[in-house]
Amino acid sequence: MSLPDGTIDAFHRGRFFLVQPRGRGHRAGMDAMVLAAAVPSAFAGRLADFGAGAGAAGLAVAARCEGASLVLIERAPEMAAFARLSLALPQNAGIAERASVLEADVGLTGKARVAAGLEDSSFDYVIMNPPFNARHDRATPDELRRQAHVMDEDPFAAWIRSAAAVLRPRGGLALIARPSSLRAVLDAMDGRFGSAQILAIHPRPGATAIRIVVRAVRASRAALSISPPLVLHETGDAFSARADAINNGRASLFGD
Amino acid sequence: MSLPDGTIDAFHRGRFFLVQPRGRGHRAGMDAMVLAAAVPSAFAGRLADFGAGAGAAGLAVAARCEGASLVLIERAPEMAAFARLSLALPQNAGIAERASVLEADVGLTGKARVAAGLEDSSFDYVIMNPPFNARHDRATPDELRRQAHVMDEDPFAAWIRSAAAVLRPRGGLALIARPSSLRAVLDAMDGRFGSAQILAIHPRPGATAIRIVVRAVRASRAALSISPPLVLHETGDAFSARADAINNGRASLFGD
Repeated sequence: MSLPDGTIDAFHRGRFFLVQPRGRGHRAGMDAMVLAAAVPSAFAGRLADFGAGAGAAGLAVAARCEGASLVLIERAPEMAAFARLSLALPQNAGIAERASVLEADVGLTGKARVAAGLEDSSFDYVIMNPPFNARHDRATPDELRRQAHVMDEDPFAAWIRSAAAVLRPRGGLALIARPSSLRAVLDAMDGRFGSAQILAIHPRPGATAIRIVVRAVRASRAALSISPPLVLHETGDAFSARADAINNGRASLFGD
Repeated sequence: MSLPDGTIDAFHRGRFFLVQPRGRGHRAGMDAMVLAAAVPSAFAGRLADFGAGAGAAGLAVAARCEGASLVLIERAPEMAAFARLSLALPQNAGIAERASVLEADVGLTGKARVAAGLEDSSFDYVIMNPPFNARHDRATPDELRRQAHVMDEDPFAAWIRSAAAVLRPRGGLALIARPSSLRAVLDAMDGRFGSAQILAIHPRPGATAIRIVVRAVRASRAALSISPPLVLHETGDAFSARADAINNGRASLFGD
């Protein structure tokens, strides 16, 4: 396989691999692994990874949940190509037979969304790591990374609306975002999702959160709750035992 | 002093006392102490306690912050009377000289609010423990408790709007609520407050939060953040060291 601009990187201690652009674009890390860990271990069904990039979060779910079938949905042609290369790796054969790539913009609406391959009520779970709103961030060294991290409009309204459309009733949603996006996320979920669970990720015990993971259930009307947080480093630079287990696919984020 | 229906209860290990209705109505506890602990220890200025009841949260701030002057604002005449009795206790003399009671409904708007004694831009800090929305809770054994815990409308919109009116620019707001009210709180703050800080209170390390404390700054446009949580019980039934210090006025909730 010719990989002029790519690297092959191991995740979950070698249980799956990603082909990613070398030294540029968005490269998957802790965020994708934490997002994947939000899906219950017993999940079985059809899962969509919105804005999948090279496929990190979706493949991490499929590696942990053997009953999961996976559609990696990515708008950028170059990243969708990397996702296809990831599925073509012989090391991923056991997962790839349950996975496909769909090159589509999850921000589409109505008939355009259906025409792009995103049919209503066709998924049991959606995960998403929407582009961070980094318009004020001057450090955007290349165009691929810019596409992954920046949007001109708040992505949550459009992405969560699309997730509501493609999910069956009682289907699940999990997303990872910056804490500053919390209100936008809750507003976008209003009337579409219930049983929201917020989980904050703190780098250290005394530090403010750097990320939130939010789960919710389509067409539920149950109240919001706040789960115990995840602390990445208890002491020193090493991951806490829990963060390490989550990063390596050996534990779920919400304990289910 | 005649106290036919009241008890005198010590708080902050005897640094101040409350006169409260005996065995009925809302009796102050951990919620009021945690709310008071959200005010920075160095706070000096004019503080309003919205829906003060017998005065627990406001008096707890004044006991810890010697530069604070205090207005206890309570709508229910019987609870305002208990607040006046609290201020009249000889044990509270050092605090009472910096405190007063205003019998008023903080849900009023416009000229009616001003006429009730709540002038625009007249406070440096507002704290509030709004009535829980317990319409579905059948256990409302008496009318006084019902008034403290139940409102027909969501109280946050009205109370936070009033807080914005009476605060000076850059004035502070702190409130305690159930996690299920998070979205209503954030929506009510939108356009009025910034620099929101959310702090979840968990009964035990692995349990979902039972309360949130939210702080914010009037007329700020800075982003929301999530602070490290407070865990009430680390092991067994005793308070954690941090929770005990907060409950007794020897530590602040946000570490400032």
